[in-house]
Amino acid sequence: MKTAIKGILAALTTPFEDEKIVLEKFGENIQKFNRTGLAGYVVMGSTGEAPFVDDHESELLVKEARRAASDDKIIIAGTGRDSAEWTVKLTNRLAEAGAEAALIKPPYYYKSRMNYEALKAYYTEVADRVKIPVILYNIPQNTQIWLPIDLVVELSSHPNIIGLKESGGSLAYLGEVVSRVSPEFMYLTGSGSILFPALEMGARGAILALANVVPELCVRLYELYQAGNREEARKLQYRVIPLNRALTETYGIPAIKYALDLRGYYGGPCRTPLLPPDEKVRETIRKFLQELA
Amino acid sequence: MKTAIKGILAALTTPFEDEKIVLEKFGENIQKFNRTGLAGYVVMGSTGEAPFVDDHESELLVKEARRAASDDKIIIAGTGRDSAEWTVKLTNRLAEAGAEAALIKPPYYYKSRMNYEALKAYYTEVADRVKIPVILYNIPQNTQIWLPIDLVVELSSHPNIIGLKESGGSLAYLGEVVSRVSPEFMYLTGSGSILFPALEMGARGAILALANVVPELCVRLYELYQAGNREEARKLQYRVIPLNRALTETYGIPAIKYALDLRGYYGGPCRTPLLPPDEKVRETIRKFLQELA
Amino acid sequence: MKTAIKGILAALTTPFEDEKIVLEKFGENIQKFNRTGLAGYVVMGSTGEAPFVDDHESELLVKEARRAASDDKIIIAGTGRDSAEWTVKLTNRLAEAGAEAALIKPPYYYKSRMNYEALKAYYTEVADRVKIPVILYNIPQNTQIWLPIDLVVELSSHPNIIGLKESGGSLAYLGEVVSRVSPEFMYLTGSGSILFPALEMGARGAILALANVVPELCVRLYELYQAGNREEARKLQYRVIPLNRALTETYGIPAIKYALDLRGYYGGPCRTPLLPPDEKVRETIRKFLQELA
Amino acid sequence: MKTAIKGILAALTTPFEDEKIVLEKFGENIQKFNRTGLAGYVVMGSTGEAPFVDDHESELLVKEARRAASDDKIIIAGTGRDSAEWTVKLTNRLAEAGAEAALIKPPYYYKSRMNYEALKAYYTEVADRVKIPVILYNIPQNTQIWLPIDLVVELSSHPNIIGLKESGGSLAYLGEVVSRVSPEFMYLTGSGSILFPALEMGARGAILALANVVPELCVRLYELYQAGNREEARKLQYRVIPLNRALTETYGIPAIKYALDLRGYYGGPCRTPLLPPDEKVRETIRKFLQELA
Repeated sequence: MKTAIKGILAALTTPFEDEKIVLEKFGENIQKFNRTGLAGYVVMGSTGEAPFVDDHESELLVKEARRAASDDKIIIAGTGRDSAEWTVKLTNRLAEAGAEAALIKPPYYYKSRMNYEALKAYYTEVADRVKIPVILYNIPQNTQIWLPIDLVVELSSHPNIIGLKESGGSLAYLGEVVSRVSPEFMYLTGSGSILFPALEMGARGAILALANVVPELCVRLYELYQAGNREEARKLQYRVIPLNRALTETYGIPAIKYALDLRGYYGGPCRTPLLPPDEKVRETIRKFLQELA
Repeated sequence: MKTAIKGILAALTTPFEDEKIVLEKFGENIQKFNRTGLAGYVVMGSTGEAPFVDDHESELLVKEARRAASDDKIIIAGTGRDSAEWTVKLTNRLAEAGAEAALIKPPYYYKSRMNYEALKAYYTEVADRVKIPVILYNIPQNTQIWLPIDLVVELSSHPNIIGLKESGGSLAYLGEVVSRVSPEFMYLTGSGSILFPALEMGARGAILALANVVPELCVRLYELYQAGNREEARKLQYRVIPLNRALTETYGIPAIKYALDLRGYYGGPCRTPLLPPDEKVRETIRKFLQELA
Repeated sequence: MKTAIKGILAALTTPFEDEKIVLEKFGENIQKFNRTGLAGYVVMGSTGEAPFVDDHESELLVKEARRAASDDKIIIAGTGRDSAEWTVKLTNRLAEAGAEAALIKPPYYYKSRMNYEALKAYYTEVADRVKIPVILYNIPQNTQIWLPIDLVVELSSHPNIIGLKESGGSLAYLGEVVSRVSPEFMYLTGSGSILFPALEMGARGAILALANVVPELCVRLYELYQAGNREEARKLQYRVIPLNRALTETYGIPAIKYALDLRGYYGGPCRTPLLPPDEKVRETIRKFLQELA
Repeated sequence: MKTAIKGILAALTTPFEDEKIVLEKFGENIQKFNRTGLAGYVVMGSTGEAPFVDDHESELLVKEARRAASDDKIIIAGTGRDSAEWTVKLTNRLAEAGAEAALIKPPYYYKSRMNYEALKAYYTEVADRVKIPVILYNIPQNTQIWLPIDLVVELSSHPNIIGLKESGGSLAYLGEVVSRVSPEFMYLTGSGSILFPALEMGARGAILALANVVPELCVRLYELYQAGNREEARKLQYRVIPLNRALTETYGIPAIKYALDLRGYYGGPCRTPLLPPDEKVRETIRKFLQELA
């Protein structure tokens, strides 16, 4: 396993046509991404319409990702279901299919019950029983749950929990976690709007929806920072924020897919209930892309 | 299909042991419930740990419910997944297995996108494509989504949408929906604490977690109301509210299962991450049950 | 003090013109309301733009209300500020000015700190130190705080706390409070959409924004219920729900004031930042009023 | 007016004893703070229990702050009330008393109405009518309102709006605002946990609760950053995060006041309903302070 994840990973979209998965388009997208400096791919992250895809389809997607990805790209699968039992079953099935690590969001349907002890029990049981390493996933926008900082620190010493993707966008959270866990624990930001300050605060890398649409810019920002060129990194960060906000907050996955279509990848429609962007949204996306070209 | 649902249905718990489903306990519970005045059963409702159970397990549960239930009891299955596609697939599979209607909560992972049009598209596509009637399911405690009243009214004219289970507990919502839809549309409350006033405002019946634990009292309250004995109905309503709040709000499914164990049914543990009730919770439940005995 | 509040009270609007209070319009409205069957008036409730009005203005409003109101109408003042100290000071000043009871919402700026003990300390200190009786006020729409049921029950035994206005609209809450407090404790609903079922569950009366606009209908509904005519009460309840939802949920105080203008009272503008209703809103309000005429 | 605010300002606590303001303690604290490198003071910010203090008391506090502060320290007053009218009246009264700028949070009681247009109307009317410059204040923890980025950008061109204090802690927000407004517009972070990355992203300074308790460390972090010593700035940032989280998130103002007492300032009790910290909280605060000593 390439446990030393760093740099930029793309949280891939899942291609559909008439509500069905189009595997070949998925593979073609990945082959194009192979030519970029991306470090790897997340299949069935939040950008991948994960809760829209059943277990069998998930397996097909991971197999295709592994087949299409070049050898140097890590494949991480989003495998979180609401019970530990189901999550373990799905994770091990996707490990067989080629996933090298599992990105696992917290259970969130019974959120009033998801206190420290419940979340600890869930992640511990899952990490104990799955065959690939676990990456914790904090995404309060969708789950209404913040993984408690103390819990992340406690879980970071589990031998099979190797990192955290944090999509809430809090650098206070980042700073406290990074300063309290061992250096091997990988902190990855999930927000393309704070990549630069997250690296400055100690993040190892990022898993980004934005890296679907403008992978080159995300990688360049990372490299500028690595090269110590903060001034240019900050400027590039400023430049991508408006597009990133449009794609991830204001308009969501339908807009990401539209942007992919514009950029020469396959975007296509989402599954219902995510509806196509209207012309006003499309115009906004075109404008932001042109400004970045 | 017994479309004329009325009276009290129980939202059944799903029996587990060591994280595995115990089908025979599920059947035994149902056989005991057959002797009560319950009108039917919901399999994999929110009380049934629905998001913890995969598609194959769901099929086994519905088959067992159909096998164990007496002929006069309707079997409704919770079949909502986040995409229309997956929901259709699961619903039709469970229809084959014996489900007579589908109770479908709204998609809620991408909740910032779940506006009127998205929810309408979801329910319309699902209702168009499934082989059994659809019951809408409003449960904002878990989904953070209120189905808009105007949407419920609009969807009520779809030939394959036959009713609504409303668990948010709003009688204003009830009053407006009932007065704007046709009399055939079935409004069912999902809260055992407001059964009496819900009937008074026009609800046809109820699907209740409480009806697992004290089915006799729920049925008696319904019958008192039907008989025009509002004074006794109100008194009985007052008596069950504290237990219902403890079971459904304060402590949740682990407490419901403990109460089932006390009442001679199989409760057992939940799947992780729902943790067993501690002694203080158990004592509270025992006390409330004794007061109702 | 007319502690035996029952029936329907109006939560009055506060008349403004060019951002200034227009006291004479306030008095004229009250004189018109005197001819209805309303039991009294709330000055500076949530409908009265309470947080927009300073202490001196509050005093003028209470004095004018007392002057204009007929003797049989009780005057209740909204006096809740965020600290006990300020609330006590304002309450006693308004008691001098003629307020007969104080309606007190919980402090809500530091809401993450407003646990059981903090709310208990607040209400206890206030009730100990003010010269008029206190009515608790649950309005989670605006405060994001639900007064815990157990706290309401505990506070109900304080000699200077005489009742509760509950605007969250929960009949489960109503049922549990009413069945656990002494019969002298006055439970008043704050929602015109659930007046009928609230009375059925044990409410003593109501404080309603809706009672500004259609006081006659609110009073008639109350009287129908008192006379045992549930069928007509339910029908009337259904009829007023759409208007009430428009006024209190969808459009708010600017729409209430527009409706007052249409009904021959003074409505006028709100203080900034509450903006005037646009023509689409005004048309909706006109339509609902015509349907009720 | 010292419009060129930069560096670190303390959001002062308000000293009470037996629920009454103790002005001399307020002055003594400020005289001690005068010896630090703080750039100024905020009177009646969120840390100052602003909603607990009436208009007359606010005036006394500002006068005392102006009297006690050395000439080089700017005095900013929190003056936001829910209506523009009241806010203008209070702001101009406090301008007379010595406030040099006004920090104004959005109205939040009628938050479902506080859309873009309402907030724009509020801030525009206030800024037009007050005699001192306005600083916008984004504090969603307490108000549940995020000032829209586009609104901040639009308001930044108002001649009497000079900056923004952002306490939500979002660096994406910071990055977008800073890159879209003129360089004169002052972006101040309100979170002591992200001071370092906020400066890196373009913040001009900070208004901090933390700067009450450890003003020296806050100033040192700022100076390290100004000197280009990012490594040490980051390390110091890590060190203060746990204390800052305890003071501002986990325990709040009562803990800040306890820490002030330990550090040789006057902390004292809060007004009811903010209750004194228990021994466990006090021990945590002592521990964090010792680790920083």
